[in-house]
Amino acid sequence: MNTRPIPMTASTSSELGDAVERALARKDLPAASTALAEASTREIVHVLERLSPRQCAIAYRLLSKQEAIEVFEALSPGLQADLVHGLQDAEVAALFADLDPDDRVWLLDELPAAVAPRLLRGLSPHERDLTAAVLGYRRDSIGRRMSPEFVSTHPQLTAARTLQRMRERLDRAETIYTLPVTDGGLRVIGVVSLRDLLAADSDALVADLMHDAHTVSAESDAEQAARECTESGFLAVPVVDSEERLVGILTIDDAVRILRHEESEDAARQGGVEPLGRPYLSTPIRRIVRSRVVWLLVLAVGATLTVQVLSVFEATLEQLTVLALFVPLLIGTGGNTGNQAATTVTRALALGEVRPRDLLRVLTRELRVGLCLGLLLGALGFGITALVYDWQIGVVIGCTLLAVCTVAATIGGIMPVVARVIRVDPAVFSNPFITTFVDATGLVIYFVIARAVLGI
Amino acid sequence: MNTRPIPMTASTSSELGDAVERALARKDLPAASTALAEASTREIVHVLERLSPRQCAIAYRLLSKQEAIEVFEALSPGLQADLVHGLQDAEVAALFADLDPDDRVWLLDELPAAVAPRLLRGLSPHERDLTAAVLGYRRDSIGRRMSPEFVSTHPQLTAARTLQRMRERLDRAETIYTLPVTDGGLRVIGVVSLRDLLAADSDALVADLMHDAHTVSAESDAEQAARECTESGFLAVPVVDSEERLVGILTIDDAVRILRHEESEDAARQGGVEPLGRPYLSTPIRRIVRSRVVWLLVLAVGATLTVQVLSVFEATLEQLTVLALFVPLLIGTGGNTGNQAATTVTRALALGEVRPRDLLRVLTRELRVGLCLGLLLGALGFGITALVYDWQIGVVIGCTLLAVCTVAATIGGIMPVVARVIRVDPAVFSNPFITTFVDATGLVIYFVIARAVLGI
Repeated sequence: MNTRPIPMTASTSSELGDAVERALARKDLPAASTALAEASTREIVHVLERLSPRQCAIAYRLLSKQEAIEVFEALSPGLQADLVHGLQDAEVAALFADLDPDDRVWLLDELPAAVAPRLLRGLSPHERDLTAAVLGYRRDSIGRRMSPEFVSTHPQLTAARTLQRMRERLDRAETIYTLPVTDGGLRVIGVVSLRDLLAADSDALVADLMHDAHTVSAESDAEQAARECTESGFLAVPVVDSEERLVGILTIDDAVRILRHEESEDAARQGGVEPLGRPYLSTPIRRIVRSRVVWLLVLAVGATLTVQVLSVFEATLEQLTVLALFVPLLIGTGGNTGNQAATTVTRALALGEVRPRDLLRVLTRELRVGLCLGLLLGALGFGITALVYDWQIGVVIGCTLLAVCTVAATIGGIMPVVARVIRVDPAVFSNPFITTFVDATGLVIYFVIARAVLGI
Repeated sequence: MNTRPIPMTASTSSELGDAVERALARKDLPAASTALAEASTREIVHVLERLSPRQCAIAYRLLSKQEAIEVFEALSPGLQADLVHGLQDAEVAALFADLDPDDRVWLLDELPAAVAPRLLRGLSPHERDLTAAVLGYRRDSIGRRMSPEFVSTHPQLTAARTLQRMRERLDRAETIYTLPVTDGGLRVIGVVSLRDLLAADSDALVADLMHDAHTVSAESDAEQAARECTESGFLAVPVVDSEERLVGILTIDDAVRILRHEESEDAARQGGVEPLGRPYLSTPIRRIVRSRVVWLLVLAVGATLTVQVLSVFEATLEQLTVLALFVPLLIGTGGNTGNQAATTVTRALALGEVRPRDLLRVLTRELRVGLCLGLLLGALGFGITALVYDWQIGVVIGCTLLAVCTVAATIGGIMPVVARVIRVDPAVFSNPFITTFVDATGLVIYFVIARAVLGI
């Protein structure tokens, strides 16, 4: 056991990483191996996240067996899959057998479907059963991310008996710090924390120590369940089947991992990018291009709407070219207002602060916010344009800003809620999507107002 | 102790919430009180997050004392501050005394500075000392978010002695599941998990059970430290001072709370909004307007640059109005490409996958990605425009798309890294900011190419 007198700090962590990167760059494997041996699991993970898939497989082979499995478990599932492609079959089989059942399933979800049966055949019957139990749930459900290895207790057991029972099963349980309490039918009736068990008299009954359980259904959405776990105030929540029977446990560290994954996906979609599922620097350029090009094309096709709108008003534009000058400013402001509303509401939906049935509340709120912003910007826009150009142009710009801000905030605010109502990921109505949509609407508003005010 | 045969599920949770909301709406306090008494802490929090500050204070007063403190601790700091304004001084003083030292400081950070001394005077000397220790660290540092109440052990103690020591201090420790191991000088030399202590023989020495500690410095950035805690593989990390001495502990549930807060802020800034710091539905309209108007004005002022650019090229526009038709499409596509790059890199920076020194790597990657995307969209744009209009316009649109995509991806990608290098929050270079910047650049590129190709 290696005890280091001076603990790791952020700066030494990055220095160690540099040493490994430099050694790998000059193909000095012994030096890389030495540097890796001194690094902590977390530091090694950070090094691997910055390497190309090929370099990553080379570096991974330099790790000790115990370190290798810990590092692998800490990698993102996408990077795990890339790494597996760079390893030999025997190495993959050994690695796979050492993973926890939930980590195994997470990896399988990233690998081609044909690989799964071969890997599963290599497991012991007990491990295969545990993995199959998790595999039985649909993708995106928490059943697929839970751990089927837990210790539970009963209300009529004493604290001492529960502690003994837990010690006997220490090796096989994902967590021992929060124990589900079940009745005779395996139904969850509460949870008891190890802390309370240790604090209690040894003959105290679990029934008198347990708290109400916040359980999650195995079929429920993984992100939602993970958020509930982190909000539960416990370090784990029991996962139950449709008959409320205990089937697994979700620990807070797994919940954090799920949320990080989901939040990366949400952040990507909000920016109009397909999630990479792996670290930026270790992703090949062609994969990055692929993650962006589809959305970019969709949005560009959407944007041809603006060309059509402008074609309709081409005569007006020819008569008064000055109107063209304000097009980017007006649609830009509309896009920004829409983005602001969409960003706020999307986050509120993700955190569960806003629900689908709040559609009307969101609508009236954003209408009012948009009106306030529009009045402010419109007044300002009128003043400045009236001074620099003339008062008629000022009226057009002022009125357009007022209308565009109101419409943009309302659309931007309700779009994510509508998405949730029709069961689409709210982040799909990304900021670029809203911008494109608001652009076309804004142009129509602009030219209609211009024609009316200027009488052309 | 209330044991419920059927555990809480998401649907019953929302029904209970509805009952409370309805009762409050018709001012039926007994009914609201009854509904609240049946709800779990988490459900009550969700109900309060949907009420106006005034209603929130009314509902909060209906809670039992024990429930009240648990609910309060689970609220976001902004909402806590709003709630405190609605309570009487004596109620606030009692509540404040019951909070953990770290929660107390988090609340103080949200309250007007004049309130702090009065609240601190009401504490017992011991609690005041603990709070002062946390208050001594600068805002945004993890020292200000850590818990100063911990149990530690020494390498020469046995497992049994450590367990006994821990039981004696159960009440006062934030966590007992991960214990820091310190030497004579209080310097952290490792951590030992309760699980390993329970699994070990009772006379096993802590020195043989402990793992290398990943510690965080009390002065380090709270978000960074919280992320390190969730990645450490332990349920808590020791917090040390500049001489590596143990001063506190950061538990994973506090780390999750910090990350949720920081991620909400990042998400807001990315969309060009100041963070609300409290739930959307419980925030007054004027506060929402305030959170958006400054950024909107800044961006609108920035967008006047596009008006100026177009003014310069007004003669060209008058000659060939058809050029105006493509303005929204071209700058829109540029904005989208820039947003995509910025979104990906900002997230990678937040997760520590990309560091400031990677500026050049990011630049070359985004240059290549932008070029690929530009070639694709440019070819497509040329083809379609050449067919619909004429080949010269096709060349202008094709070349502009190629140039704009390349420039936008590169700028969007390096902006967040540059922000980090000059120690500004990368999220401040938000998507709207990049859009506005890319808009002006794109227009210059467009008209320069148009003039060159069309010879005007």
